Amino acid sequence: MLVLGIDPGIAITGYGLVSVDSTGSPKLSAFGVIDSTAVRETSSRLQFLFDQLSALLTEYQPTHAAIEKLFFQKNLKTVSAVSEARGVIRLCLAQAGLPLAEYTPNEVKLSVTSYGSAGKAQVQEMVRVLLCMDAIPRPDDAADALAVALCHIGMLNFYNRASDESQG
Amino acid sequence: MLVLGIDPGIAITGYGLVSVDSTGSPKLSAFGVIDSTAVRETSSRLQFLFDQLSALLTEYQPTHAAIEKLFFQKNLKTVSAVSEARGVIRLCLAQAGLPLAEYTPNEVKLSVTSYGSAGKAQVQEMVRVLLCMDAIPRPDDAADALAVALCHIGMLNFYNRASDESQG
Repeated sequence: MLVLGIDPGIAITGYGLVSVDSTGSPKLSAFGVIDSTAVRETSSRLQFLFDQLSALLTEYQPTHAAIEKLFFQKNLKTVSAVSEARGVIRLCLAQAGLPLAEYTPNEVKLSVTSYGSAGKAQVQEMVRVLLCMDAIPRPDDAADALAVALCHIGMLNFYNRASDESQG
Repeated sequence: MLVLGIDPGIAITGYGLVSVDSTGSPKLSAFGVIDSTAVRETSSRLQFLFDQLSALLTEYQPTHAAIEKLFFQKNLKTVSAVSEARGVIRLCLAQAGLPLAEYTPNEVKLSVTSYGSAGKAQVQEMVRVLLCMDAIPRPDDAADALAVALCHIGMLNFYNRASDESQG
């Protein structure tokens, strides 16, 4: 199982790939950002995002994907721009036949730190510890994407265990 | 010149295709809706929209495209869902190399009826008259899309005339 976590943004979209061994333990595979800051025009930026994400899917062949849900306290212009990027990401994953799970920022925090009100630094430190990394992953968007992947792995492990127990 | 007008929606996206002859007069080519109401899952719905719009581009080969800008008084959930569709539409047109113009609902009304506060019925009646149709185009989303195409043709005609005069 290889899980792709995505933290979508207007210009920078973070991604994190985490594999899971037979014991259910997570293992870092890759992380980074799709940075379209240099691309000025919105449609070209969305095309850049689609092409880069398609290349990632081809290279790593993830089996599961999860994305952070939109944080609705932001202003409407931001919501609109990030949602356009989310639409393109959804399309790209759908074309690759990858089902997409969605988690709110609080669900991600709760899953990674067992504490819904945890700060950004605490979440990033937990990502570092869980994935046995020497330093906190940078930039923030990549760290957030890894947290989303870990959250999804936690949910999948939980459901698998629950299903094993109900059958056992 | 063949102009594609688009009125994006969560489940129903209207489209209208209007050609322009050498005198600058508009002529109806086609109109309709991409209706994904029957597709329940959001990602599948976006994929359906992408596939249907791609097929339209292949069939009609428009040379210009315009879309209605988001009306920001709507609630955040609607803004987010419509923006996801807009992102997919932008991507589809960008992949086809079609530049995309954007107009607010008021700009469309003003262009088609010379009256920014015109009602929906007035706009639809003007679309019918301008395109020499027997009846008002249905459904509303298709009529709105034709109005967007007519608005863009008006703008292109205006700029072409202004450019001719400045060279003359």
